[in-house]
Amino acid sequence: MSEPQGLLPQDYPYMQQALRLAAAATRRAAPNPGVGCVLVRDGQVIGEGATLRVGGDHAEIQAIKDCYARGHSPAGATAYVTLEPCSHYGRTPPCAERLIKENIGRVVAAMVDPYHEVAGRGIAMLNAAGIPAVAGCLQAEAQYVHRGFLSRVTRQRPWVTLKAAATLDGKTALLNGVSQWITGPDARRDVQQLRAANCAMLTGSGTVLADDPQLTVREVAVPSQPLRVVVDSRLATPPAARIYDTAVAPTLLVTAVADATLHAPYLARGVQIRVLSAPDQRVDLPALLQSLAADGINQLMVEAGAGLNGALVQAGLVDDIVLYLAPYLAGDAARGLFAWPALQSLDDKLALRISDTRMVGRDLRLTLQPDPNPS
Amino acid sequence: MSEPQGLLPQDYPYMQQALRLAAAATRRAAPNPGVGCVLVRDGQVIGEGATLRVGGDHAEIQAIKDCYARGHSPAGATAYVTLEPCSHYGRTPPCAERLIKENIGRVVAAMVDPYHEVAGRGIAMLNAAGIPAVAGCLQAEAQYVHRGFLSRVTRQRPWVTLKAAATLDGKTALLNGVSQWITGPDARRDVQQLRAANCAMLTGSGTVLADDPQLTVREVAVPSQPLRVVVDSRLATPPAARIYDTAVAPTLLVTAVADATLHAPYLARGVQIRVLSAPDQRVDLPALLQSLAADGINQLMVEAGAGLNGALVQAGLVDDIVLYLAPYLAGDAARGLFAWPALQSLDDKLALRISDTRMVGRDLRLTLQPDPNPS
Repeated sequence: MSEPQGLLPQDYPYMQQALRLAAAATRRAAPNPGVGCVLVRDGQVIGEGATLRVGGDHAEIQAIKDCYARGHSPAGATAYVTLEPCSHYGRTPPCAERLIKENIGRVVAAMVDPYHEVAGRGIAMLNAAGIPAVAGCLQAEAQYVHRGFLSRVTRQRPWVTLKAAATLDGKTALLNGVSQWITGPDARRDVQQLRAANCAMLTGSGTVLADDPQLTVREVAVPSQPLRVVVDSRLATPPAARIYDTAVAPTLLVTAVADATLHAPYLARGVQIRVLSAPDQRVDLPALLQSLAADGINQLMVEAGAGLNGALVQAGLVDDIVLYLAPYLAGDAARGLFAWPALQSLDDKLALRISDTRMVGRDLRLTLQPDPNPS
Repeated sequence: MSEPQGLLPQDYPYMQQALRLAAAATRRAAPNPGVGCVLVRDGQVIGEGATLRVGGDHAEIQAIKDCYARGHSPAGATAYVTLEPCSHYGRTPPCAERLIKENIGRVVAAMVDPYHEVAGRGIAMLNAAGIPAVAGCLQAEAQYVHRGFLSRVTRQRPWVTLKAAATLDGKTALLNGVSQWITGPDARRDVQQLRAANCAMLTGSGTVLADDPQLTVREVAVPSQPLRVVVDSRLATPPAARIYDTAVAPTLLVTAVADATLHAPYLARGVQIRVLSAPDQRVDLPALLQSLAADGINQLMVEAGAGLNGALVQAGLVDDIVLYLAPYLAGDAARGLFAWPALQSLDDKLALRISDTRMVGRDLRLTLQPDPNPS
């Protein structure tokens, strides 16, 4: 990987700072990218900002306002932004225009915005105005921070994080259906943080029937509760289930059943219904993810049972797996994590990469990515 | 935990050094404890030693010889020993007597030797000769280094380390019986190191039938190949199996079948046979471990399938589990790690403590201990 042209060694720590601001703003800004911006002049940070909620300021505007509030002028400063400044009139005027108007001295972006309305035009607009503008500073890091937005815009589906918890021998519940918290309180708090970072939560009918979960964010402040999405191909879940209490959070029920009379009891509880049927009379999962992206869902978290987990992983629809392993053995006669038809050869096992391991209380937390080309 | 009386701050690093010598000598010295000894005078290490093979010198004698070889006299030095010097005439004369004869100035032991022939008499003998002698410096560490010897002497069974390897969802093989290496080359080398530290290897008939393993130490130098022990209640394994090739390493076949005519084909290959039948016509596992201890086996490593693994763990006969998790998912329709009757409640799951986690190549290695009182 060659060094992007026009970058200076001192650019990197300022971009790190902008990326931290971005990470903290990602959930709030969705479906927009949660961008971070830092203004620096003569080695001094004179303004910081991050994208507000939809319709509010973008990061650059927030940083400029912060700069004035601190008694500085942004003229001549370098602007570090985690994503190329926008060049189009959307809900707000183009940020590139504002940077020009403020006589910014130089612009360093972590990456070009792949959104078709921008796609390099922000950088070009700045350069045309005589402002040196470059993209590519900590690009890989920015791609991860903006992964939800990028996935929606470039793949037309949300970034999908599957959370699972099991004993060290891979068991989630007993064969008699008994399940309970397997992980400890620290891991459960950690899961709340994960939920809070996502725009929507996905589960299946089996989990609703077995555990009657709420799937809301607790113990962590969120700008709004994530959308709850239930995959229930045959409408097997009771309309009285807690997840259909839309006073707590919105719920979308996705089914293969088109019969509107069967939808009525869910609709009566304020649940939104979407019929997305695959040829096998089950919910069409790729179509579901596409429709969620069209709704503006950048990041989706899955908390489901072995059936839906297995179907999503096998379909290649999972980006990150966060696996909590509790220090117990349940034995073979218990339920597992991922269900799919029996493999004929161990060569067909699904390869992962372990990108992070850490203890969370007494439990082990692994972060995994499907790895199509294991070494 | 109160500080043992008579210890000085500088005692600890010297004892650490003695413990490193001990750890390296453990396998060689078995069934004796692999003790380490360091002689120090005026802040200078003047002699080092560790227990040789049975019938050879104990650590203290080696350290004294090393001291003379370096041109020093041990007189007046402090002797750091990881286990109380012996006080009895066994295969060699008592070490305590030799230390007295050499006019050692002071003796620091990590722990008292629980062996009934010693049990504090070594320390008492030294004190009676006017040599200050104290035990308790890094006692917990010494108890772990000497765990095999201590287990055999105090529990009349070897220290049992169970090694298992599985995918991240806890699978070892497919339901159609297909198994193969799941872990990578680094983990397989690591397993050879583990084997090399053990006096004997234990496996079951299922593993012999499925994988026909040799269970020898490869790629690592060992004073001798570990004894291979096969649990085969009904003599289901073929006498032609590779594990019965006693030209490579000795093998003990443990069965519930008493009929001597059925033993003949195994005996013909040089295999030793032991009949240890429990009332259920299976091999009596506690009796097996007791008999292995009586044979002088300090440390036993288990590499078996879900059946024997489950039986040993459920019987409380496993001390350490070393679990290699390979970054793959095999799905529910595959074989698991530990088989036992279905639990009725998740409260009955077996609790463990995770004492170590590390990456070994692309695989994750966990070290676990059964934890009867999880917090």
